[in-house]
Amino acid sequence: ANKARLLVKCPDKPGIVSVLSTFLFKYQANIIESSQYSSDPEEGTFFIRIEFYSENLQQKSPLMEQEFIQIANEYEMNYQFYYLNRRQRSAIFVSKELHCLLELLWEWQNGDLETDIVAVISNHEDARPIVESYGIPFYYLPANKNIRQEVEAKQITLMEQYQVDLLILARYMQILTPDFVNYFENRIINIHHSFLPAFIGANPYDRAYKRGVKLIGATSHYVTNDLDEGPIIEQDVERVDHRDDVATLKKIGRKIERRVLTKAVKWHLQNRIIVVNNKTIVFH
Amino acid sequence: ANKARLLVKCPDKPGIVSVLSTFLFKYQANIIESSQYSSDPEEGTFFIRIEFYSENLQQKSPLMEQEFIQIANEYEMNYQFYYLNRRQRSAIFVSKELHCLLELLWEWQNGDLETDIVAVISNHEDARPIVESYGIPFYYLPANKNIRQEVEAKQITLMEQYQVDLLILARYMQILTPDFVNYFENRIINIHHSFLPAFIGANPYDRAYKRGVKLIGATSHYVTNDLDEGPIIEQDVERVDHRDDVATLKKIGRKIERRVLTKAVKWHLQNRIIVVNNKTIVFH
Amino acid sequence: ANKARLLVKCPDKPGIVSVLSTFLFKYQANIIESSQYSSDPEEGTFFIRIEFYSENLQQKSPLMEQEFIQIANEYEMNYQFYYLNRRQRSAIFVSKELHCLLELLWEWQNGDLETDIVAVISNHEDARPIVESYGIPFYYLPANKNIRQEVEAKQITLMEQYQVDLLILARYMQILTPDFVNYFENRIINIHHSFLPAFIGANPYDRAYKRGVKLIGATSHYVTNDLDEGPIIEQDVERVDHRDDVATLKKIGRKIERRVLTKAVKWHLQNRIIVVNNKTIVFH
Amino acid sequence: ANKARLLVKCPDKPGIVSVLSTFLFKYQANIIESSQYSSDPEEGTFFIRIEFYSENLQQKSPLMEQEFIQIANEYEMNYQFYYLNRRQRSAIFVSKELHCLLELLWEWQNGDLETDIVAVISNHEDARPIVESYGIPFYYLPANKNIRQEVEAKQITLMEQYQVDLLILARYMQILTPDFVNYFENRIINIHHSFLPAFIGANPYDRAYKRGVKLIGATSHYVTNDLDEGPIIEQDVERVDHRDDVATLKKIGRKIERRVLTKAVKWHLQNRIIVVNNKTIVFH
Repeated sequence: ANKARLLVKCPDKPGIVSVLSTFLFKYQANIIESSQYSSDPEEGTFFIRIEFYSENLQQKSPLMEQEFIQIANEYEMNYQFYYLNRRQRSAIFVSKELHCLLELLWEWQNGDLETDIVAVISNHEDARPIVESYGIPFYYLPANKNIRQEVEAKQITLMEQYQVDLLILARYMQILTPDFVNYFENRIINIHHSFLPAFIGANPYDRAYKRGVKLIGATSHYVTNDLDEGPIIEQDVERVDHRDDVATLKKIGRKIERRVLTKAVKWHLQNRIIVVNNKTIVFH
Repeated sequence: ANKARLLVKCPDKPGIVSVLSTFLFKYQANIIESSQYSSDPEEGTFFIRIEFYSENLQQKSPLMEQEFIQIANEYEMNYQFYYLNRRQRSAIFVSKELHCLLELLWEWQNGDLETDIVAVISNHEDARPIVESYGIPFYYLPANKNIRQEVEAKQITLMEQYQVDLLILARYMQILTPDFVNYFENRIINIHHSFLPAFIGANPYDRAYKRGVKLIGATSHYVTNDLDEGPIIEQDVERVDHRDDVATLKKIGRKIERRVLTKAVKWHLQNRIIVVNNKTIVFH
Repeated sequence: ANKARLLVKCPDKPGIVSVLSTFLFKYQANIIESSQYSSDPEEGTFFIRIEFYSENLQQKSPLMEQEFIQIANEYEMNYQFYYLNRRQRSAIFVSKELHCLLELLWEWQNGDLETDIVAVISNHEDARPIVESYGIPFYYLPANKNIRQEVEAKQITLMEQYQVDLLILARYMQILTPDFVNYFENRIINIHHSFLPAFIGANPYDRAYKRGVKLIGATSHYVTNDLDEGPIIEQDVERVDHRDDVATLKKIGRKIERRVLTKAVKWHLQNRIIVVNNKTIVFH
Repeated sequence: ANKARLLVKCPDKPGIVSVLSTFLFKYQANIIESSQYSSDPEEGTFFIRIEFYSENLQQKSPLMEQEFIQIANEYEMNYQFYYLNRRQRSAIFVSKELHCLLELLWEWQNGDLETDIVAVISNHEDARPIVESYGIPFYYLPANKNIRQEVEAKQITLMEQYQVDLLILARYMQILTPDFVNYFENRIINIHHSFLPAFIGANPYDRAYKRGVKLIGATSHYVTNDLDEGPIIEQDVERVDHRDDVATLKKIGRKIERRVLTKAVKWHLQNRIIVVNNKTIVFH
């Protein structure tokens, strides 16, 4: 409860770590974890993620944040404090394939996802029993091209009502409009069932089969308005061979998808990811 | 020396394995290894690779091959006998990057490639010392767009002179003309420095860096006249992260390239690969 | 329904494949998949697994099996026919950790395990809700050292009542007596939470942490009366580092355990495994 | 040339990062890379590796080191500055198997190892031609149990003469005496041809074959006086199956050994490794 994370992005120059760590020390913070990256030590951009602990952090934080503004201005910092006592709120969108949803629920139940899953929304009824068995509200919102905006309006209303921080597309097979995507910039994580940039778009397993690849993969990424072109968070692959038909590729692929999506979600919730130039920095 | 391999492709129907194994038994052959695949047990295509041993095989083989014609006709077989006492002859084309060449030479020296490496041809002089230290003839043939046909004519002359069965492009950075490719159909193995079909064409590591992928790969394939679209033999990947610049990706990539190319060459020489519909069946 | 598998073990000599395939052809069988292995083509032991299809197999099989005896005698074969219309029956033993059980149930529900899961038995009540939600009978049988024989008697009664073919220990934390193990020879699959033979016995993750290994693993094996020394079916590993404490190793390990156990169970049910000299041949 | 690395180990408490980074800032150092680890934020041990750049570092360093003593005392630090303009000096011991040596030479020639390889010593003549072709002095020192101390005396003389910082055992098949090991504490890296702690001692591939493992591995570690029990730096594995005999396991193993040893050496030379409690912290 007395833990927080500070993420900073600023022009690189000497002294940044010194000023940040001295500032935190002044607030009796012990730095638990710290990771940094510079695109170029000379004239590049500097990124840092600091996780720290400090007694009575909640009482101190308003003053701390107030005082930090001066440093941020001096060093031209983009920054954000995340307090662990404030749990992030996630919603999951899913269609008929439930493997990714189940994996997320399983990890969440084990306490391995730092989030409250506040709602699951689907354009099919398949997921209802399992979702409700976990005590999570389930919303059935049929969707298709023709009613997209109307449906998205309802979805956004729900997102606002539930104060959703993160939206997870766990094999949600509908395209989102630019308005929707912009509304949740860098806060929608999708799982694409191929090793991007191979097989962008529909039916990647069919196309992988046709091309005769020897490995198939999955990619989790933030959603942008360029289909399957958003910043990649995580990818993984499995070996296949000539005997594997499309149905087998899909089965193997499901195992990849669920672990790749779960990792991406976990890292997002741990504030490990910074998006820059349509790429991700992931601090492990 | 008394070992051979029989590769067969034919319409699938009951009795093929029976007729083949009974035929081989008649010639006192012991089947050492046998792998088969059917695209569909009903009306599909059947493929089989049989490795067998038989005393005095060289004396028996002319009669055996003669008699086999009848079976082949009855079952509409495409087939080929490969005798292990007849070592295949390989040539390697290379440019300035020598890591794949070195790996092949190293495996070959260890006796792990069933081939004689009869010549190395390069459009640069870099590889000469190492190649000649192995006692292998080295040919320097400068190449560029404008003199392509002239150079290929010389290359083909050398290939014929050396009776080359397999041509390995170990990071040879010149494009081959359709005439050249057709001349060596399914006998030219290339290594492409990306996980195909991602990053077809030039500068794949630069593009992988730009896209922010989390794994980079390499692909060995038979060369066809569609650039980087030939039948894939083997692929592999390694994990990378945001800290890896293009130079680092290339270094990591070199390790992938050399193992992926070496595996493909080894399997080809063991007659483990059948090309069908621009895909490969690889019998392990 | 008209599919079967034939597994054979016999002294190697020429003609075995011929006699088997000719026999099957006589029964109009089409060989769908065939894998063989010889420990040594000269005087070794020969193993083969043939999957075949034949119309009206059920009607033919009694005669077929009758007639096969002669071949089996002539070639000194150990053999077994498995008919796919006769589904194998599995029971699962589990304690408090449910991840392996859940993975098995999930694969089973997807139709990816060729078995009926007929009962789950546990020395704890934790698994009851999830098991019963799948409509599978759940038995709570408390167990400890002092009542081991009494409990095993009850377990065997249940196994017999349910006609169990395969017993899966999905993190069942009790030791079985030699009598129990012998009763189910090569039919009990266990998951051990280390990369055997490293960390045999209790608390492997604690010991892996203490030793500072850089990869942790899991091993599925048939249970014998030498603890953790039975024939290994499958193993896998994941990378860890100095930051991972024992709790984290356990979390990572759970993901390895569930995929390693599931693969072993799947292959057993597909009759892909032959045990010989405390090792397994697994025909992929 | 103006780069250095500072490694620090001390009791964890708030303010360490602040004092270190402020100190470096005073010397106009820009922190290029920084990694830290605490065994426990409360009363644990804190470890940090900082790579920094500072103009005219050579001129500043005596004063800098002098002034650092006060901080080190106050925080009870074990620490070491490493200057990149002072290249580390490595020697390699090898026997008859040359694959690890060749990989090291290859990486070194590519500029991927931050070291001068100043000598190769062997108890066989096999490596001489390749070593001398790189212009590296080669010493043939026959060795066996009976003359161990005499040989080690000569080896130590050579090590001193060449001012060796790091000794790499690239498949050197002789045991070293405690005196020798103590002389080079945490400066001898060995490659063991198994996935430790499995198959400690001699003939690991034979024993892996006999046990029927499904993955084989290799382990690089610092040498201590407990055979194969030293701090593990890196491990990796490859998949094998029932068809792989001991000779094949050895071939596959060689590929693992060479990449595992090379990684360990690279990280050591980059001062990424801290040994604590017979385990390694490796800062990536």
